[in-house]
This record gives sequence, structure tokens and C-alpha cells, in this order.
Amino acid sequence: MDAAKAIVARPQGSVDLLAELALQDMRGVDQLIIAKMDSPVPVIPALADHLIAAGGKRLRPLLTVAAARLAGATDEACLKLAAAVEFIHTATLLHDDVVDGSQLRRGKVAAHLIWGAPSSVLVGDFLFSRAFELMVDAGSMSALGVLAHASRVIAEGEVLQLTRAHELNLGQDMYLEIISAKTAELFAAAAEAGAISAGAAKARCQALRAYGLKLGIAFQLVDDALDYVGAADALGKNPGDDFREGKATLPLLLTIERTGAAETKFWERTVAHRNQTDLDFRRAQDLVLRSGALEATLDLAADYADAAKTDLAGFAGPWRTALEELADFAVSRSA
Amino acid sequence: MDAAKAIVARPQGSVDLLAELALQDMRGVDQLIIAKMDSPVPVIPALADHLIAAGGKRLRPLLTVAAARLAGATDEACLKLAAAVEFIHTATLLHDDVVDGSQLRRGKVAAHLIWGAPSSVLVGDFLFSRAFELMVDAGSMSALGVLAHASRVIAEGEVLQLTRAHELNLGQDMYLEIISAKTAELFAAAAEAGAISAGAAKARCQALRAYGLKLGIAFQLVDDALDYVGAADALGKNPGDDFREGKATLPLLLTIERTGAAETKFWERTVAHRNQTDLDFRRAQDLVLRSGALEATLDLAADYADAAKTDLAGFAGPWRTALEELADFAVSRSA
Repeated sequence: MDAAKAIVARPQGSVDLLAELALQDMRGVDQLIIAKMDSPVPVIPALADHLIAAGGKRLRPLLTVAAARLAGATDEACLKLAAAVEFIHTATLLHDDVVDGSQLRRGKVAAHLIWGAPSSVLVGDFLFSRAFELMVDAGSMSALGVLAHASRVIAEGEVLQLTRAHELNLGQDMYLEIISAKTAELFAAAAEAGAISAGAAKARCQALRAYGLKLGIAFQLVDDALDYVGAADALGKNPGDDFREGKATLPLLLTIERTGAAETKFWERTVAHRNQTDLDFRRAQDLVLRSGALEATLDLAADYADAAKTDLAGFAGPWRTALEELADFAVSRSA
Repeated sequence: MDAAKAIVARPQGSVDLLAELALQDMRGVDQLIIAKMDSPVPVIPALADHLIAAGGKRLRPLLTVAAARLAGATDEACLKLAAAVEFIHTATLLHDDVVDGSQLRRGKVAAHLIWGAPSSVLVGDFLFSRAFELMVDAGSMSALGVLAHASRVIAEGEVLQLTRAHELNLGQDMYLEIISAKTAELFAAAAEAGAISAGAAKARCQALRAYGLKLGIAFQLVDDALDYVGAADALGKNPGDDFREGKATLPLLLTIERTGAAETKFWERTVAHRNQTDLDFRRAQDLVLRSGALEATLDLAADYADAAKTDLAGFAGPWRTALEELADFAVSRSA
């Protein structure tokens, strides 16, 4: 597989150092998450726990904690912001799964298929509100402003994706605009808010924001690549979901461009009109691999990860090393 | 109609004085609303404008402005909070209409039927985020905390209603708990946040919060009564929506209690199982009126409105008079 070649040529990266450094902090974050997803209304903790206990890598709260510690934080205000970031992320996942009609999330049946779409919408609203309560507790209006702005940009990105997703000629620039908004903005804000809570100088907050933004773009590019080559059990969701939803992600856009007139009818039927048979995803996978689009997507992700690492130039110590390894991990991961 | 008797015995009330006093402030609020619902993503202002331009009475932002001015505010911070309050309200309306599958809102086709449920969910998220951006702009962490808390309580109330709405023996206490959370909490927070932005003493902020809470309960009680006796063109929505959705509101709960065993099968079929024919709402209306449940609901609303007025005892001047008239209006209104 071409993808393997592209991956092997780069440092593997890892979240291990980051997870080790942040172990104590993340215990505190998890305690906050568990305490704050509670409610006297029984459906709320049940539904929230279904998604939150399923875990995921907690990358966004890790980023808040890492940025805060790297910027010199000695108190625990960043833990509240980190929990808030995870709640914003969880709320958007709940709403996205309703919007996309997704079946699987983090290896479990999507919440809206168990509790219904109405409960998923409302529990998303609950978690979103809780996030702002946590930020009020954290006490930094500036960090709160960064995360409120991010939440708005995420919603704009989701609407943009919803209304333009099926355009065969969406273009790489518009694709990058969409993933910057719907995914990378929260990575950026998570890091920036952490740095702000540490009382860091503006330039250092902006450097960590820039790191987060590029990391987020790399992360989403790889996510979109894995949707064509990943394995369901590792991904925790079904590969091919993007294709079946007719989402014009970069691997697909590049493949459409590279396969030219020969495949126009295939893409129009399957992506623009979402009129698909079971065999169509296999054919799309084959074209994505053979055209080199998958490799090109992963190469672009690697460029963003490398650029993210340069944003850390003004910092030193083990937290910097951990964030560099995280950037490499974002590209080399297989799930 | 019995309802007419109950209404005539009370002061009619009016929003006229409040609207006149707040005219200049509300122009500023409207300008903020229009400016802040804008977005480079075209669906967002279109969908938001559909609902916001349809108006409604803007009671909640009026309450923020009135509480701020009554508490002595001389600056314009309350206008940003008022716009934020209207955005929170609009976001919950968008999500509620998706959750309930409502057809009409403010006399227009519900947004989700035009732009689809996914857009309604995401534009709700956009408006919710914008609300918090506006609050950050307003600069009061304390007011922000009050509105973040309210947003969370609203979501809890909506989930509570969703999961328990069809219970024939829900009980008046649980009904009041639900409407306090899903409706009255935002009235309470709108008033409290306004008072906080004026720098009022804690006791005065709490008095205005208490006024808002009782006003909101009265308002929702009348809303639920009008669903059995209102006219579609005045309401801006279809009467009978609550009954058709099997929502156990107070007029219905009291009727079920009063009609006893004779009608148990009717209520079980129509409300608990939502197995209805076109004639069932007529019969329900008839029973709600004949049992005196409608009058009892309006009497309870009047009690809350009267109690709300006593919360204003520590204040003086035209804004107090305007809020007293608003409390009476909440009960006497026919739409």
C-alpha cells in the first residue's frame, strides 16, 4: 500500500510522553468531567457517560494541559479549561452524529440510535452549557472568549460542510477552510486557552495557538485518509462513512481531479447524488490508492505536522518534546 | 367560556409602557442582534433571520434591559447581555422545534422544515456560541455565570420534559419543576444578569431574579392554557400541539385528575400512547374547559404574577410600574 511507504519515511511519534507528563493533571480533568456530567435528570449522565467513558484519546484536553504547563502554569485552572474543552468536543460529536446520521462512534453504537436524536441534541446543549460553567469557574474571561469564539467557528464550519460537502469541485482551499473551522479551531483554542490560563505573554499564546491549529489540520487530514484505508475495529467507526455520506474530503477531491473525465460519471452518481451500491466504496478505495491521492493527503498532513513543530521553537523542556512527538503521532497513527 | 371570567376579574396589564421606556435600548439590542447573527456562511443569517425577524415579543431581552435600568444602570453593557439572552432563547427554539417536530413557529413554517433539522441544530449551536461571545464583550463574569447556569438548567428541563412528558400522573410539582427549568429559568437569569450588569447589590439582583422566575412560570402556564383555547393566527402556532405531542401540561394534568376513571382509557390512548384521531383534540378541549382545569391553570398563573409583583417592593419609578404591568399582561394575554 502506498500509504505505508509515506508513513514509514517519517518519525512515528507517540502520545506516550505527553500522557506520562500529564498523568496527574488528566486524573484531575477526568474527575471534573465525571463530576460535571452528572445531573438529577437520569438520561443526561447515562448518555454523556456512553460517549465520554468510551474515551477517545482526550487529545484536546491534553493539549490544554500541555500548553498551560509548557507556558509555565503552576496552578490547576487549566484542568477546568481542559474539562470544558472536552465537553465542547463531546457536544459537537453528539450533534454531528445526529446531523450525519452516523451509526458508530468510538467503537460503540452512536448515542442517538439508543436514546434518540432529541436526547442527543439536548444533552449536547447540556454539555455545551456545562463547558461554559466550567470556564466561568476557571475565572479567565480571556480564555473564555477564545473558547466561545472557537465554538462559533466550529458551528460555522459544520454548516459550511453540510451545505457544500457534495461538491465534486469543492477545491483544496475550501476543504482546508472547512476542516480548519470544524476541527482545527478547537485544537488551536484548546492550546491558546491553556497558555492564557498560565498568564503567558501574547506572543507565546499565539505560538501555541498556531501549533494547535496546524496539529488539528494534520489530525483531520489523517482522519479523512483513514476513512479510506482504516480498519473498523481500530477506528471505532465504519471506514467509508465519508464516502457513503458523499463528503468531499481531500483524498476524494484529489482522486476526482486525478482520475479526470474517465470517472466523472462514477463520482457524480456516488458522491454528488449519493446513489451507491455496496461495491462502490471498494472501487473508490481502489481509485484513492492508485491515483496517489491518499499519499498526497498524508504528505500534506506531514507538512502541517512539521510546521506545527516549528511553532514550538520558543519553548523548551519535556513538554515541548511531548508536543513534538504528538505532532508526529497525528500523522503516523492508524486510528 | 370560563376562561374569560377568570381573565376579566384581573388587571389586563400591558407591555406598552415597558416597550416605550425601552424603545431606545431595544433599538440598540436589535442592531446587535442583526450584526451578530451575520456569518460568511449564507445559510446561517438566512435561517436565523427567518426566526428572529419574525419577532416575537422580545420579552426576555426587554426583561434584561428593564432590570438593568431599574437597578440603576447608566451604561450600555445590558444591551449586549439582552442580545445574548435573545440568542440563547432563539437557539433553544430552534432545537425544541427539531425535538418536537413542530410545524409552525411565530406564525411561520418552522425552520427545520425549510432548511432541514441538521441546519437547525447547527445554527442553534452558532447562536448559542454567539450569545457567549456577546457576554464576553459585556465583560461581567458574574452575569456570564448566571446565563451559563441558566442554559444548563434549560437543557435539563427540556430533557426532563422529553423523558417524562407522557406521564398521566406526572403531578403538579414535577410539572412546575419542568417549566421552571425549561422556561422560567431564562426569565430569571435575564433579569438577574441585567441587575448584575448595573452593579446592583446582591439582594436587589436576587429580588429581580425572583420576579423573573415567577413571571416566567406565569407565562408558561398561560402558554399551556392557550394551547387548548387560543387561535392559530394569534398564537403563531397550531393550538393543540401539546395535546398531539402527548405533553402532560397542567391544564391536561388537572383535567385528567378531575375527569377520573370515566376518561382513563381516553387519556391513555391519546396522551400516553399518542394514538389520536382528528376529533380527539376537540374532546380534550371540551373536557379541559368543562372540568374547570383551564380556569385553575389561569388562576395559578395569576397567583404567580401577583407574587412576582411583590418581588418589586424594594424598587420605585416607571420601570417598576412597567414590570408590574408586564406581570399582569403575562396572565391576560391571548397570544
